[in-house]
Amino acid sequence: MAQSQQKTNAGRFFEDYAVGQTLVHAVPRTVSGGERALYHALYPARHALYSSDTFAQSCGLPCSPIDDLAAFHLVFGKTVPDVSLNAVANLGYAEGRWLKPVYPGDTLRAVSEVIGVKQNSNGKTGVVWVRTRGLNETGETVLEYVRWVMVRKRDPQAPAPETVVPELAAAVAPDQLAIPEGMEFEDYDFALAGEAHRWGDYEIGERIDHVDGVTIEEAEHMMATRLWQNTAKVHFDLSVRPEGRLIYGGHVISMARALSFNGLANAQMIVGLNAGAHANPCFAGDTVKAWSEVLDKAETSAPGVGAIRLRLVATKGGAPFDLRGADGKYLPHVLLDLDYWALMPM
Amino acid sequence: MAQSQQKTNAGRFFEDYAVGQTLVHAVPRTVSGGERALYHALYPARHALYSSDTFAQSCGLPCSPIDDLAAFHLVFGKTVPDVSLNAVANLGYAEGRWLKPVYPGDTLRAVSEVIGVKQNSNGKTGVVWVRTRGLNETGETVLEYVRWVMVRKRDPQAPAPETVVPELAAAVAPDQLAIPEGMEFEDYDFALAGEAHRWGDYEIGERIDHVDGVTIEEAEHMMATRLWQNTAKVHFDLSVRPEGRLIYGGHVISMARALSFNGLANAQMIVGLNAGAHANPCFAGDTVKAWSEVLDKAETSAPGVGAIRLRLVATKGGAPFDLRGADGKYLPHVLLDLDYWALMPM
Amino acid sequence: MAQSQQKTNAGRFFEDYAVGQTLVHAVPRTVSGGERALYHALYPARHALYSSDTFAQSCGLPCSPIDDLAAFHLVFGKTVPDVSLNAVANLGYAEGRWLKPVYPGDTLRAVSEVIGVKQNSNGKTGVVWVRTRGLNETGETVLEYVRWVMVRKRDPQAPAPETVVPELAAAVAPDQLAIPEGMEFEDYDFALAGEAHRWGDYEIGERIDHVDGVTIEEAEHMMATRLWQNTAKVHFDLSVRPEGRLIYGGHVISMARALSFNGLANAQMIVGLNAGAHANPCFAGDTVKAWSEVLDKAETSAPGVGAIRLRLVATKGGAPFDLRGADGKYLPHVLLDLDYWALMPM
Repeated sequence: MAQSQQKTNAGRFFEDYAVGQTLVHAVPRTVSGGERALYHALYPARHALYSSDTFAQSCGLPCSPIDDLAAFHLVFGKTVPDVSLNAVANLGYAEGRWLKPVYPGDTLRAVSEVIGVKQNSNGKTGVVWVRTRGLNETGETVLEYVRWVMVRKRDPQAPAPETVVPELAAAVAPDQLAIPEGMEFEDYDFALAGEAHRWGDYEIGERIDHVDGVTIEEAEHMMATRLWQNTAKVHFDLSVRPEGRLIYGGHVISMARALSFNGLANAQMIVGLNAGAHANPCFAGDTVKAWSEVLDKAETSAPGVGAIRLRLVATKGGAPFDLRGADGKYLPHVLLDLDYWALMPM
Repeated sequence: MAQSQQKTNAGRFFEDYAVGQTLVHAVPRTVSGGERALYHALYPARHALYSSDTFAQSCGLPCSPIDDLAAFHLVFGKTVPDVSLNAVANLGYAEGRWLKPVYPGDTLRAVSEVIGVKQNSNGKTGVVWVRTRGLNETGETVLEYVRWVMVRKRDPQAPAPETVVPELAAAVAPDQLAIPEGMEFEDYDFALAGEAHRWGDYEIGERIDHVDGVTIEEAEHMMATRLWQNTAKVHFDLSVRPEGRLIYGGHVISMARALSFNGLANAQMIVGLNAGAHANPCFAGDTVKAWSEVLDKAETSAPGVGAIRLRLVATKGGAPFDLRGADGKYLPHVLLDLDYWALMPM
Repeated sequence: MAQSQQKTNAGRFFEDYAVGQTLVHAVPRTVSGGERALYHALYPARHALYSSDTFAQSCGLPCSPIDDLAAFHLVFGKTVPDVSLNAVANLGYAEGRWLKPVYPGDTLRAVSEVIGVKQNSNGKTGVVWVRTRGLNETGETVLEYVRWVMVRKRDPQAPAPETVVPELAAAVAPDQLAIPEGMEFEDYDFALAGEAHRWGDYEIGERIDHVDGVTIEEAEHMMATRLWQNTAKVHFDLSVRPEGRLIYGGHVISMARALSFNGLANAQMIVGLNAGAHANPCFAGDTVKAWSEVLDKAETSAPGVGAIRLRLVATKGGAPFDLRGADGKYLPHVLLDLDYWALMPM
C-alpha cells in the first residue's frame, strides 16, 4: 500500500526561500467573544479597552476590540507552517504596526513577503527575513511586522543565495503609528481604567516592577498556543522534547503584558512593535514576572492620546531591572526583552 | 533612573477604610457566549436555564443568562484590588441578592460602600465590611452582597477607628428575593431539566449527597480565577506560596453548585446569598464533593415559582453530612458552607 | 433528618432498557462562538471550513459551523446520564450521519431509541443498542448514530430479556450521506485551506502518517469533557480511579482528527461515522499521534464535492500503520480505530 509522508507538510528549508517570494498562509480565522473570553482566562488581562464595550465606546471605538496581542498571535500562528516549522531560532522582530483594531466577527488571514536571506558561515543554516501582514475579511491590513528566523538547510551542499539583509528601522517612528479612526481619550475614565497615572506622569528612563507573578502550567500554554493555531511541535509533543515542552514565546509576551497592568493600566493599546528578543526558553513550572522601562514618549494627533515607548521584560521570577551580564548577554532568568509603543491618555 | 514601585497597586490597608467611603472598582467587563462556554468547560454545570436559550425562553426569559455565580465572580473579582489584596481572611457574606439576570452583551462594573470597620484587639489587623453592587451598562444593579474581610494594618501604631459593626440579616427574607420580570415555571419541562423533583418534593431538613466528585487541577482554577479578573497573588504565584497555590474560594463555590445538579437539577436560579464560610483552604489535587441540606422553603408571587433555601457544603472527598467537630469548628475536610436561596418549579 | 440519595441519578441498569423505549435526554444546549474558540484551544483544529466564516461562505454555507465532532460530543454528552453511567464498556458505533451543520445560536438536544438488548452469558451484564438523534431548536435532526454499550445489571437474578440484535450497516452507503444545502467546492481555495491535495490525489489503500503529536494533560481533557456536559465520573474523580482518570474516548477522536489536518487538510466535513473502537484507554501523559488510511471514495451530487472514507487511528506515540497483533487484537499502543466519511474537493 502507498504510504504518503509526502502529503504532510515538512515545512520549508532555507533554500526554499528567495527574496521577493509571497507566502499565502493558510486557514483564515473568524474571531468572536470566545477568543476574548479565553484570552482573559489564559492571561491576567485587565486593560479596560479590551474588557468593556462601554469603555471602548467612551474612547471612540464601536466596541471592545480583541486584544492586540491576540490579533498578533493569530497572524503569527498562521505563518508558522510556512516560516518557522524548521526554524532553529526566532531571532527578532521589527517595524511592527497595528493598523486597525480587530473586532468580534472579523476574519483574519496572513500573507508574508520574503525580504532577506543570508546563509550562515557554517553552511547548515541561514537567516530568513519576512514581512508579514494580517488582513481582515475586507482585505484591509490590520497589522504588519518583520521577523527573522534561523532556518535549517535541507541540503548543506545547496548553493548559498545572494545575501540580502533588509534595512530595518531601530524603532517605528511616532508619526508612523496608526491611531484607530475616531479614537480619543478626552473622556477617559481613570477610575474605571484602574490607575490614575497618565502620559505626563511617566518619565523616560523610569522603571516599573510589576510585582505580580504567574507560575505557568502545561495545559495553559498549550491551550493558548493552539488557540492561535500555532502548530510547532516543540510546544506540544513531549516525546520529541523529553526535557520539557518549549513554551511559545508569544505566551510569555502576553503573560508579561497582562502583568504590566499593575503600573501601566493606562498603556491601553499596543500600536507599534520596535524589537523583541526571546532571551531564554520558558518551561512549565517557571514563575513569570515582569518589569517595564519607559524608553520614549511622543504626542499624537488624536485628542488626548499620547504614545509611550516601553521596554517590557519578562523574567523567571528574577530580580527586576537586571537584564544583561558583564558579557553583554541576557542573564539566565530573563525570558523576554520587548520594545513596543502603546497609546496612553495625556 | 527612577524606579516607580509607587505606580503599582499595593492595595488598601485597614486604616485606609472609613465607614461611608465609596469604592469605584476598575475594569468593567462585557460578557459574551465565550464566558458561558468557559463556565461550562470549567465546571460540570448543567442547569438547563443557563445552558439553553430555548429552555430559558420557555421560562419567560429573553434568552439564557450567564450563570448567576459567573456574574457574582465577575463582580467579586473587580473588588479584589480595592478590598482584599491585603486581606488575611475572607470572613463572610450576607444579604446577597441577584436582582437582574446578566445576558451576553451586558457590561458589568462594581461599586462598594464601606459599611463597617472594627480593629482587632491585636492592633495589627481589622475587619472591614463592604456592601458591593454589580451594575450593568444601563446603571441597573444586577446583584448586591455584603462581605467582610480581615485586613492588615499598614502601620500597627495607627489609631483605631471608631468601631462600626453593621447589623446584617441572618438570611434574606423570602419577600426580598427578586424574581426576573416575566419569569414563570408554568410550562417547565422536567424531562429537559434533568430531574422530576419539584419544590413540593423537598422537605426542610432533607439532605442530599450529590455523589459526584472532581479532582482539581492547577490550570483549571487559575483559568477560572483569571476569567473573573481576580488578581490575588496567592492563586497564581507559587514563588510566594511554595506550599501550594491557594484556590479561589469562588472556584469551590461554583464547583460545588455544579455538582449539586445531581439531586437539585431544578434549583435553577440563585437569587439570594444568606451566608457563606470558606471553612478550609483548597489546593490542586483535592477532590471536591458536595452535599446539600434544605433549610427553608417559601412561595413567590411568580407563576409556578417556589423558593428553596439550601445549605451547600463542599468537602475534600469527605463523608457527607459531617460539618463540625465536637468543638463546634468545621471539620478539616469541609471546604465550604454556603447558605443560598434558589428558584424551583412548584 | 431525611437523607435522599434517591434524588440523585444512579443511572439505568441493563434491566431498565427495553427495545422500543424512547429516552429524552436532558439539558439542551445553545452553542456560540465560545464553544468554537474552546474547540480550537483544546485541539489543534485547523480545517478552514470550521475556522473561517469567509471560507465557509466560499463553500456555499451561511457561516462557519461548529466542528462536526463538537456537535457529536454535545449530543453524546447528553446521552451519558441515560445510557452509559453504568456502562462497563463503549463497544461500538454505526450508521452515524451528520444531516445539518450546527451554527452558533443553535440549541441542541438529544433523544435515543433503544433498538437492541442482549444479556451476556455471565448474567451480570448485557449489551444495549441505542439510536441517538441530535435535534436543533426547530426540531430538525442534525445528526444521528447508533452506539452500543455493555451495561451492568442491577440485579443479577433479574430475568433476561428477549435478545434483539439490530442489523447495522457495515458502512453508511455514499448515497446516504447528507450534503448541506447549497454546499459546493467549485471555488475552493486550496492555498487558504492549507494543502493542495484533492479527492483525485488520494488512492484507496493509501496511508498517511500525520506526524505531529500532543502530550495530553489532565486539565485539558476534563475541560473538554465538561464542555460537552459529559458527567461520567471516571473522567473527573481521582478518588474513584486512583490509577488515573480515564480520558473520554471522544477527546481522543477530536485530537486525532485535528492532527490529521497534516495530510488531510481538505477532508473538510465529516458526514458519516461507519464504525469506531476505543481500542485501549488513554491517560494524561500519553502522547497522542495519528495515522489515516483511505478506505473508499465516492462522488456526490454536489458541485465539486467528493466523499472519502477514512480510517483514523490514534496511537500512544506508537509506530504508524501497526494496528493489530498476530492474535487479531489491537496492539497496546492503539487508542482509537475510527471509520468515517468526509467531504473533499474534487
